Amino acid sequence: MNATISYTLAELAERFDLAAHGDASVRVDGVGTLAAAGPSQLSFLANSKYTAQLAASRAGIVVVRAENLAECPGAALVAADPYLAYAKIAALFERLPAAPVGIHPSAVVAPTARVSASASVGPCCVIGDDAVIDDGAVLGPHCIVGDGCTVGAHSRLVARVTLVVRVTLGQRVLVHPGAVIGSDGFGLAFDRRGGHWIKLPQLGGVRIGDDCEIGANTTIDRGALEDTVLEEDVRLDNQIQIAHNVHVGAHTAMAGCAAVAGSAKIGRYCMIGGNAGVLGHLELADRVTITAKSLVTHSIHEPGEYSSGVPLQESRPWRKNAARFKHLDAYARRLSALEKDKNHE
Amino acid sequence: MNATISYTLAELAERFDLAAHGDASVRVDGVGTLAAAGPSQLSFLANSKYTAQLAASRAGIVVVRAENLAECPGAALVAADPYLAYAKIAALFERLPAAPVGIHPSAVVAPTARVSASASVGPCCVIGDDAVIDDGAVLGPHCIVGDGCTVGAHSRLVARVTLVVRVTLGQRVLVHPGAVIGSDGFGLAFDRRGGHWIKLPQLGGVRIGDDCEIGANTTIDRGALEDTVLEEDVRLDNQIQIAHNVHVGAHTAMAGCAAVAGSAKIGRYCMIGGNAGVLGHLELADRVTITAKSLVTHSIHEPGEYSSGVPLQESRPWRKNAARFKHLDAYARRLSALEKDKNHE
Amino acid sequence: MNATISYTLAELAERFDLAAHGDASVRVDGVGTLAAAGPSQLSFLANSKYTAQLAASRAGIVVVRAENLAECPGAALVAADPYLAYAKIAALFERLPAAPVGIHPSAVVAPTARVSASASVGPCCVIGDDAVIDDGAVLGPHCIVGDGCTVGAHSRLVARVTLVVRVTLGQRVLVHPGAVIGSDGFGLAFDRRGGHWIKLPQLGGVRIGDDCEIGANTTIDRGALEDTVLEEDVRLDNQIQIAHNVHVGAHTAMAGCAAVAGSAKIGRYCMIGGNAGVLGHLELADRVTITAKSLVTHSIHEPGEYSSGVPLQESRPWRKNAARFKHLDAYARRLSALEKDKNHE
Repeated sequence: MNATISYTLAELAERFDLAAHGDASVRVDGVGTLAAAGPSQLSFLANSKYTAQLAASRAGIVVVRAENLAECPGAALVAADPYLAYAKIAALFERLPAAPVGIHPSAVVAPTARVSASASVGPCCVIGDDAVIDDGAVLGPHCIVGDGCTVGAHSRLVARVTLVVRVTLGQRVLVHPGAVIGSDGFGLAFDRRGGHWIKLPQLGGVRIGDDCEIGANTTIDRGALEDTVLEEDVRLDNQIQIAHNVHVGAHTAMAGCAAVAGSAKIGRYCMIGGNAGVLGHLELADRVTITAKSLVTHSIHEPGEYSSGVPLQESRPWRKNAARFKHLDAYARRLSALEKDKNHE
Repeated sequence: MNATISYTLAELAERFDLAAHGDASVRVDGVGTLAAAGPSQLSFLANSKYTAQLAASRAGIVVVRAENLAECPGAALVAADPYLAYAKIAALFERLPAAPVGIHPSAVVAPTARVSASASVGPCCVIGDDAVIDDGAVLGPHCIVGDGCTVGAHSRLVARVTLVVRVTLGQRVLVHPGAVIGSDGFGLAFDRRGGHWIKLPQLGGVRIGDDCEIGANTTIDRGALEDTVLEEDVRLDNQIQIAHNVHVGAHTAMAGCAAVAGSAKIGRYCMIGGNAGVLGHLELADRVTITAKSLVTHSIHEPGEYSSGVPLQESRPWRKNAARFKHLDAYARRLSALEKDKNHE
Repeated sequence: MNATISYTLAELAERFDLAAHGDASVRVDGVGTLAAAGPSQLSFLANSKYTAQLAASRAGIVVVRAENLAECPGAALVAADPYLAYAKIAALFERLPAAPVGIHPSAVVAPTARVSASASVGPCCVIGDDAVIDDGAVLGPHCIVGDGCTVGAHSRLVARVTLVVRVTLGQRVLVHPGAVIGSDGFGLAFDRRGGHWIKLPQLGGVRIGDDCEIGANTTIDRGALEDTVLEEDVRLDNQIQIAHNVHVGAHTAMAGCAAVAGSAKIGRYCMIGGNAGVLGHLELADRVTITAKSLVTHSIHEPGEYSSGVPLQESRPWRKNAARFKHLDAYARRLSALEKDKNHE
């Protein structure tokens, strides 16, 4: 944390258009949790289960809803959505690693690639033919930008990102280490006569919209014929798998280890939970939420929250219940038979 | 797409032994979907749900089954399996990135490694002691081939592939970026006295047969004592986990995020769905299909399709149903009691 | 295997404090399975299902429980826990790849980094500002150690490991290829007015205790405000996802593809099965076991084994049972109604 960056209550109130309460000259140079923040740090209360920590907090400034203002022990900023306000304020205190403009001497750049003079290309990067690295883009160490790929202005590949071929990133896209974008889709035809698989060439590409974020070790395959597409502001956590020809609508977010099979079309403003899956060729409407580890087996036409799975139990009773599941259809029939008998009595 | 590569209907019919209908001189230089292909492109109809698009397609040539020939608006090729025929034809139009023969000056190659004069070793590759890179093999940028590993003839490591140690790839193996093959198996013994874990050395290797494909960020551990084995023509999608001492039979395919635990033995011609799992030490017969996200908890001795899981619902009714699952054994007992009462009446 | 390393029965008995039976001069230079080991190899019997193989084993020495001694055809070592004893003995025969002390000329090391004279830094490694590589640490090829990260003494990054920023590894930590530690946590606030996501800066770090092991392509995000923590001797298999601010207690082990969401707190000596998941902000007591593919949806306060999921079946009957699950709540109500009728008769 750079100690020379600090802001007063008054400065923060003005910059973020928030109502201030308390000593306008209180100054903070960082952020922390309600429990851990000290007098020179700002904290926030967004989740009511932490309300009990508010009165005892030593934070110099706390961001709260109006309803919690009375319990604040010191200076406060009032926001309709304290978590959002905190997110914006906290960004002031982030110190990103330095990214020197220019191309590191260990990088290998094809003569036909076009690298903006304001871009930063780190150690051991490899940039292919006809690739474009636009203004202000930052490539950390060990990034590979394949033939014909484009990294849009002010995008940032943190480190060790691979864009395989025909990948276009928009502006301000953030990609974390180990992500692989534009790899072959998994397209195979079975040759019955020969008794073996024949690979389908994957001739499409990948288009990633502005302001997307792609997590560590996430994989996004390129399309078979047309492109795999993420519209703008799509947010993917770590270890997500996006198969070929998937289309993800703007502002959709997916938690870690989610997976979407080929040619599925996900709407805008969807939320896909951790390790959830979507089968191929399905369509999800806008504003669909899928809870963690659920499997989407049919298209969803209405916004709302959807789930599958059974609850966690101690293994001993669980085993008994799980064994019964194999006879659920029979139980339902037996239940109907009893009811029928009852009605005929 | 290289516009100078093109083929007439007659040339394609002869090359792939297919019946041609329409103008023999129609020429195509690429492929596309029924909806998007233009007069200089070839398309195909394999899935009956797209039949409605056939009549309106502007594609120069369409590959169809005989039964759909009447609906073709223009030139056509007739195939028993149009998807397979299309796969073979489309390969003509794939342009792989150039792979210059020789070793890039930034690569680090151990003096005892043997690299064929016809192989291509890309920027920043690292090749260990006694490694072998055989004829026509291509290593894209940033590949690591550990001590004693072999890359068979005409195999291709797209980029950033890691072969850790004692890994042997057959011929024409294709490995996508981020894959790690030959890492330590997860072998631990618990030392009760010391209250901590003791690691078992992983002394085996990995053997990958000819014509296998390994997806992006997939991991295949080496064996503890003997080798982890993939027979020929095994096809693994992205982010698959193959634990130590697993044996996968020839022509088996696994979709993204599938996982196989240690010492499991999967048969030939199996299909493992996305995010499905197989527990350790189990055996699956040949021609077993596991649907997506299922967990295989016992060995399977008969070919067929197997599943687990419960269906997706709106979360509100799902929560009620899921809560009832915890009492399923009790319900079954109560149902039997009612039936017994009924029979004693 | 280096043939010059060998040990007699007497030497092994003394070194590991085990009772020896048979010819004290029997000498072994490697290990193998009961079925495959030859006269110059040591084997073990830990799992009773392999007892039948013992009498026919050609192994020079076998490690067994006292109760199996009578069936040993040759020399034997007796141990209370043969698997543990074998683990310790087998380590004698592991030959790790050579790691020359010093910094490879292709590595890029920041002037402010501190690399111990006894450390090994491999080809193409990139070490950032103020990073520390402590005594005897080994960095294989292509490792990235970001600004301010520390690699503790005798830790080993096998190859292509990325420590992003503010990551501290203890001593003797082993990290496998493709692992990403210290990437941004997935922290987002939704800006309703703007209709888009706002990213929360991830200002914390990651602390990994002594003797931890991190599998291939595993991801561990850094904390939002405080650190993500793994206590000592935590063992993570491949492709595990640990979100920001997770805390994992000492000696806990997780199998491949497990995932833990943000701010969850896992106890000591827990066992998390393959592809199991833990939702955010939950707490698991010490000595909790979660079986494979289960989803933990509530905190667990008691040690024991916990599960979720339904059993695998052939798909045809499974589909019928699964369809019934959507009506389980209704069935339970109908069952209660029948019972009530019965009691009122």
